[in-house]
Amino acid sequence: MSVSAEVLATEYDGMMSQAKRFLKIGKQITIKVPLTWEGLKACRELSGEGAMVNVTLCFSPVQAMMAAKAGATFISPFIGRLDDAGQDGMELIHEIRTIYDNYNYKTEILAASIRGIPHIRNAALAGADVATIPPEIFKASLNHPLTDKGLAAFLADAKKAGVRIREE
Amino acid sequence: MSVSAEVLATEYDGMMSQAKRFLKIGKQITIKVPLTWEGLKACRELSGEGAMVNVTLCFSPVQAMMAAKAGATFISPFIGRLDDAGQDGMELIHEIRTIYDNYNYKTEILAASIRGIPHIRNAALAGADVATIPPEIFKASLNHPLTDKGLAAFLADAKKAGVRIREE
Amino acid sequence: MSVSAEVLATEYDGMMSQAKRFLKIGKQITIKVPLTWEGLKACRELSGEGAMVNVTLCFSPVQAMMAAKAGATFISPFIGRLDDAGQDGMELIHEIRTIYDNYNYKTEILAASIRGIPHIRNAALAGADVATIPPEIFKASLNHPLTDKGLAAFLADAKKAGVRIREE
Amino acid sequence: MSVSAEVLATEYDGMMSQAKRFLKIGKQITIKVPLTWEGLKACRELSGEGAMVNVTLCFSPVQAMMAAKAGATFISPFIGRLDDAGQDGMELIHEIRTIYDNYNYKTEILAASIRGIPHIRNAALAGADVATIPPEIFKASLNHPLTDKGLAAFLADAKKAGVRIREE
Amino acid sequence: MSVSAEVLATEYDGMMSQAKRFLKIGKQITIKVPLTWEGLKACRELSGEGAMVNVTLCFSPVQAMMAAKAGATFISPFIGRLDDAGQDGMELIHEIRTIYDNYNYKTEILAASIRGIPHIRNAALAGADVATIPPEIFKASLNHPLTDKGLAAFLADAKKAGVRIREE
Amino acid sequence: MSVSAEVLATEYDGMMSQAKRFLKIGKQITIKVPLTWEGLKACRELSGEGAMVNVTLCFSPVQAMMAAKAGATFISPFIGRLDDAGQDGMELIHEIRTIYDNYNYKTEILAASIRGIPHIRNAALAGADVATIPPEIFKASLNHPLTDKGLAAFLADAKKAGVRIREE
Amino acid sequence: MSVSAEVLATEYDGMMSQAKRFLKIGKQITIKVPLTWEGLKACRELSGEGAMVNVTLCFSPVQAMMAAKAGATFISPFIGRLDDAGQDGMELIHEIRTIYDNYNYKTEILAASIRGIPHIRNAALAGADVATIPPEIFKASLNHPLTDKGLAAFLADAKKAGVRIREE
Amino acid sequence: MSVSAEVLATEYDGMMSQAKRFLKIGKQITIKVPLTWEGLKACRELSGEGAMVNVTLCFSPVQAMMAAKAGATFISPFIGRLDDAGQDGMELIHEIRTIYDNYNYKTEILAASIRGIPHIRNAALAGADVATIPPEIFKASLNHPLTDKGLAAFLADAKKAGVRIREE
Amino acid sequence: MSVSAEVLATEYDGMMSQAKRFLKIGKQITIKVPLTWEGLKACRELSGEGAMVNVTLCFSPVQAMMAAKAGATFISPFIGRLDDAGQDGMELIHEIRTIYDNYNYKTEILAASIRGIPHIRNAALAGADVATIPPEIFKASLNHPLTDKGLAAFLADAKKAGVRIREE
Amino acid sequence: MSVSAEVLATEYDGMMSQAKRFLKIGKQITIKVPLTWEGLKACRELSGEGAMVNVTLCFSPVQAMMAAKAGATFISPFIGRLDDAGQDGMELIHEIRTIYDNYNYKTEILAASIRGIPHIRNAALAGADVATIPPEIFKASLNHPLTDKGLAAFLADAKKAGVRIREE
Repeated sequence: MSVSAEVLATEYDGMMSQAKRFLKIGKQITIKVPLTWEGLKACRELSGEGAMVNVTLCFSPVQAMMAAKAGATFISPFIGRLDDAGQDGMELIHEIRTIYDNYNYKTEILAASIRGIPHIRNAALAGADVATIPPEIFKASLNHPLTDKGLAAFLADAKKAGVRIREE
Repeated sequence: MSVSAEVLATEYDGMMSQAKRFLKIGKQITIKVPLTWEGLKACRELSGEGAMVNVTLCFSPVQAMMAAKAGATFISPFIGRLDDAGQDGMELIHEIRTIYDNYNYKTEILAASIRGIPHIRNAALAGADVATIPPEIFKASLNHPLTDKGLAAFLADAKKAGVRIREE
Repeated sequence: MSVSAEVLATEYDGMMSQAKRFLKIGKQITIKVPLTWEGLKACRELSGEGAMVNVTLCFSPVQAMMAAKAGATFISPFIGRLDDAGQDGMELIHEIRTIYDNYNYKTEILAASIRGIPHIRNAALAGADVATIPPEIFKASLNHPLTDKGLAAFLADAKKAGVRIREE
Repeated sequence: MSVSAEVLATEYDGMMSQAKRFLKIGKQITIKVPLTWEGLKACRELSGEGAMVNVTLCFSPVQAMMAAKAGATFISPFIGRLDDAGQDGMELIHEIRTIYDNYNYKTEILAASIRGIPHIRNAALAGADVATIPPEIFKASLNHPLTDKGLAAFLADAKKAGVRIREE
Repeated sequence: MSVSAEVLATEYDGMMSQAKRFLKIGKQITIKVPLTWEGLKACRELSGEGAMVNVTLCFSPVQAMMAAKAGATFISPFIGRLDDAGQDGMELIHEIRTIYDNYNYKTEILAASIRGIPHIRNAALAGADVATIPPEIFKASLNHPLTDKGLAAFLADAKKAGVRIREE
Repeated sequence: MSVSAEVLATEYDGMMSQAKRFLKIGKQITIKVPLTWEGLKACRELSGEGAMVNVTLCFSPVQAMMAAKAGATFISPFIGRLDDAGQDGMELIHEIRTIYDNYNYKTEILAASIRGIPHIRNAALAGADVATIPPEIFKASLNHPLTDKGLAAFLADAKKAGVRIREE
Repeated sequence: MSVSAEVLATEYDGMMSQAKRFLKIGKQITIKVPLTWEGLKACRELSGEGAMVNVTLCFSPVQAMMAAKAGATFISPFIGRLDDAGQDGMELIHEIRTIYDNYNYKTEILAASIRGIPHIRNAALAGADVATIPPEIFKASLNHPLTDKGLAAFLADAKKAGVRIREE
Repeated sequence: MSVSAEVLATEYDGMMSQAKRFLKIGKQITIKVPLTWEGLKACRELSGEGAMVNVTLCFSPVQAMMAAKAGATFISPFIGRLDDAGQDGMELIHEIRTIYDNYNYKTEILAASIRGIPHIRNAALAGADVATIPPEIFKASLNHPLTDKGLAAFLADAKKAGVRIREE
Repeated sequence: MSVSAEVLATEYDGMMSQAKRFLKIGKQITIKVPLTWEGLKACRELSGEGAMVNVTLCFSPVQAMMAAKAGATFISPFIGRLDDAGQDGMELIHEIRTIYDNYNYKTEILAASIRGIPHIRNAALAGADVATIPPEIFKASLNHPLTDKGLAAFLADAKKAGVRIREE
Repeated sequence: MSVSAEVLATEYDGMMSQAKRFLKIGKQITIKVPLTWEGLKACRELSGEGAMVNVTLCFSPVQAMMAAKAGATFISPFIGRLDDAGQDGMELIHEIRTIYDNYNYKTEILAASIRGIPHIRNAALAGADVATIPPEIFKASLNHPLTDKGLAAFLADAKKAGVRIREE
């Protein structure tokens, strides 16, 4: 199971001391730092020591490039919040993808603040690396009215043909 | 104020008798009928008599074309529900726009089941004629963090300059 | 009601004498002639006399241009049969549309041999003028699983709210 | 010969016990499960045990991605049924192709419910991996009027040249 | 009937005296001059006097623009000869169309040296104004194997139904 | 001379009373209101009374559409501030242009916070209606090294030719 | 030298016995079979035995795919005959190229029935593997008026410079 | 005949007094001023008085827009000199065309410093309004090797047919 | 730390003697030479001897190609100055990228004279190799109003939840 | 130093005997032959024997393909002469590039008859392999007015700072 812990500090020293405490618990913990000057300094230091870092609160491709240069393991563009600002959040995923491919950055794009199924659909088409999907949206993403209809028809046919569907 | 009334029937006769009763209340009432064979028959009859008809539950450009041919005043593609099915709901607006422009249909495209600000944004870029926006989304659509920031800076500058902002 | 009659002849004289007999029945009858040299000669003659002519069995944009020049009222590209030959039948509609728009030809494009709903959809997006749709396809074109589902949900909600749906 | 067996159950337990029985007959049997929450759970379990799984009743790219993540050997988008709903079924193949290429998924795209030759043509141009073609459509797909004409001309020429075509 | 006469001269004076003689025969005669300095001088003079001039031997869009400026009634790009030189002759039609549309020139584009049906097809799609088609190509342009096949099937059906096809 | 006055208030009542005072000075004064709920209410009221209103602090196409619907005379997208946030400010001008053209809105797009010559260049290519350019940028926008070089060469030539350049 | 022999039969058995006789003469002989059901059966059998098979009379991308699946060494789209039917023959080469690249088929595309230099030009740009060019077209394909003119100028220059061009 | 006179001054006053002297000679004279701050001031003044002004030494679309705003009758982008600087001079014509079309400016684009036939060709395709072409390039622009060849063949044919080409 | 030294000379000999002195200090020093004939000669000589050379003052793709051929380690297009001339400076980065990719040149593109965040953004999207960013712009590039807002919200939530944010 | 020698003959035998004499001087000499039937025969023979051959006077992509098939080391499209004929010479480079990439031909494209800096620029963007540039154009290609201006400013700054620029 992957675990990630968010530092509750805005200055480098505070971030580092908290991160160190988290990492004592286990090397597998991903440290979350915000996309600020202090956050990126902490990111560089921590990733240099082999820790996994997720840089959050990313809203522009320039920020994403800087995070990659600071050694981030994950970058978290918050597309839902850009959408709320009347802009095209998904475009951000495309621009980060372009820049990361241009320079062969290994930082993974984590589509954060997924609000609904269109976000999953578009993140997949744009090539985001990871998407954090709330469980109810995950389950809903499997639904399609034609699947329901097809399943019903199939079961009806089976019944008509004398097949007994048993849930053993 | 525009008023619209939904018929609670699935057969032509039921739809018509209900619609007639609504129209007795006022000619300005838009009658809502579902996009079914019976619904379109009612639509043709009602629009032929000068009533305004909104054909709802539209999910394909073919349906939309048939509604236009039946004299619909409005067509209501439900983009949110297509999105939920993992498809690109907004594409439907574009296809209906193309077909309506090809044949110069006057039926207005009413972007129904608006779920968030991206729906408003995209419906506007695609050229939908009308959008029914829930009040809280309408208000939220005016927000942008840079507007807030700009406003705060502007007020701070005014204060510094000794201007008293009075809400008279 | 529009009526159209197909000439049962392959030579100009036979076509003309049959057409004349049809036109005696009524001026409103559209005469159908095949896209052959003899057919186009008959088309020019008949359209020159004010009759409506539908040139059938069209499979290429060049044929369609020649029919327009011969004064055809309608051109009937048979897209289903091109599809059967492993080619893209709908492309033909697009090419005829381009040529007719280039030269402002008034001949109407009649999408013939409609086989299913994709043909209706594509003909509408390409801007065909007329489509002859078999009744069962016409009815089926109104169906969408989300319409059914929406209708069911709406009726269920109405029921729950104590509304009695009466088919008067 | 490839054999595939469809589970007649809607719950995980039922699916698994039926699948196990099929697999006792032979490891080569592909198990068909529907694209539901229960179906994908079974898919993951079965594919983890080395069985081949075909996830059916797929209608959206999001569903297809989830099936790939669950280890499906095949995904079966039912393009004919989407076409019937007035949407562009073939677009689904393209979107799944894009997503599978983005993430290098090995799940094979099986163009199911092939209705005619355009489906074969388009599935091939979109890069579907497998297509299940009814025998009569398969045979018809080889026909082209110019092939017939060319063959006839060729045989006629041979005859004229005195060649005896013998079916030995 | 439209008549056109080609001047047999390479100098302005020779061209003019021949043209004058042709025009005495009838004002309707189109004078053909080659796309040379002398030819365009003659074109300007003749078109200024109200005569119709067809400038031939055109192979570049620059030549075509100069001819239009000299008042040509028709410009004749020789696409077949450009094709023979391994270049894309049809591209020339497109470029002339663009320039003539940019400046609203009324000179008509006459697709000359039509070699086969693809030339007719492409000239129509590019929007050439006139095409001079040899009679045998004109007739051949009406053929399509599916037209033949459709006609045969139609006649066979008629026969089966007891209809006697009479060529009266 | 065009004059514009900025209201120093964040509530509707304060905005209106200030605006009224400005308008007493002269009807030609454009009232500036921020893109907030209160600001748009004031905009609708003021424009309804015939005043000119400039809605400022616009950062999204959705905001711009709402301002147009509220009757704004001008909309002021602040492209420089979007640029500072690592986004493509100029894209906003394009999106507003598209939406305003879709609905034929008469609100003029005022490219505000012009920071340099690229902003002028791009605003012109995107079709902004007005641009407020600081004087020093305006003057600088006329410079080009080849203009200087050409001018120098021209003057040198004139000198060589004995022409005396007199600034009379 | 490559030799190819055309079977004079329309049934599988006839094709096979003739092919066998040809192959006794030499393994290098390519067997030509028509694109029919019987032809493809023979193709599969013969290619399975290591013989080279050229499937002729191909007019659609679907046919071409089936031939590749049957193990054809070469596929021969007859583009000239499609052109004659008023369709875009060259498009067929592009579609086959796309499908063969999608599936990594090794069957070589042989541009058959080359009618002129545009066919060579376009087949090369589309990436056909082989083109059978009649000798007179092959020779003509080397001509360009500017080559002639350049050569003449070059020889004239050489002469002027006193160089004697000797054909030793 | 159109006459244009270049002011030999770099300051507004000098430009104006020279321009006034030129305009006394004739109102038809176009005054040439360079694209500088002083030049545009003179342009505005002169065009306001009804004179025709040609603004020269233009190298950027921003300069061209400013000239149009200053009332220039003509703008002269010097594409040859941009080409010499290793940039794409012709792109400038396209950008000016876009801006002038966006704002419906009536200033005519004068393609200046034409260096060869490609400049004429491209200026025509881009929609420049005027091109000043040196006489030798103008004449050369009529040449094409296939025109020469066609003319030679035509004359040879005429000769063979016994026609005497007389230059009367 | 990377050090670079600019030669203060315009002739080859002066450049070389200065460069030699710099290189005595350390082999790691990058020598900066201007993009002139003399500068490229020095570049070839120095790079041939293993020194690192940065060719500055580049404004066209042709210049950049020549610098690459002369063995430059870095090329410095000055995009800000092109922007100031009313041209699209960023286009230069794209053209250099295309040419360097065409020929597999190893010279690194160094986006020089970065003026603001849009330059960083665009250079990254175009694939520049290096960008020299003034410190204040570098820091500013990390800002986004939604990051600030998100951070504030996060800290407020933490506070509400009783978490004490300590900067240890 | 690379040396190339042009054969002064139009027949195969003459070409070969001259070429043989050149090759006796040195194996490194590239033999230039014109793009004619005889020239290509000589090319095949000579390249078969290991000599380097440059096929000149190329004006069409079909010619270029034939030269590559004949084993040419270099192909020399003469773009300047095509430009003079009012066609787009540079398009030829693109088409040859496409064909050579389609078939992986190793023949190098040599952009011959370079007339100015746009030819260098475009040949580089199109991916020509070699360009023969006259020395004065080569030198001019390094000039840009902003380079001059930057250099002047730099030197002025240095002077002001008391640095003595010494050309040692």
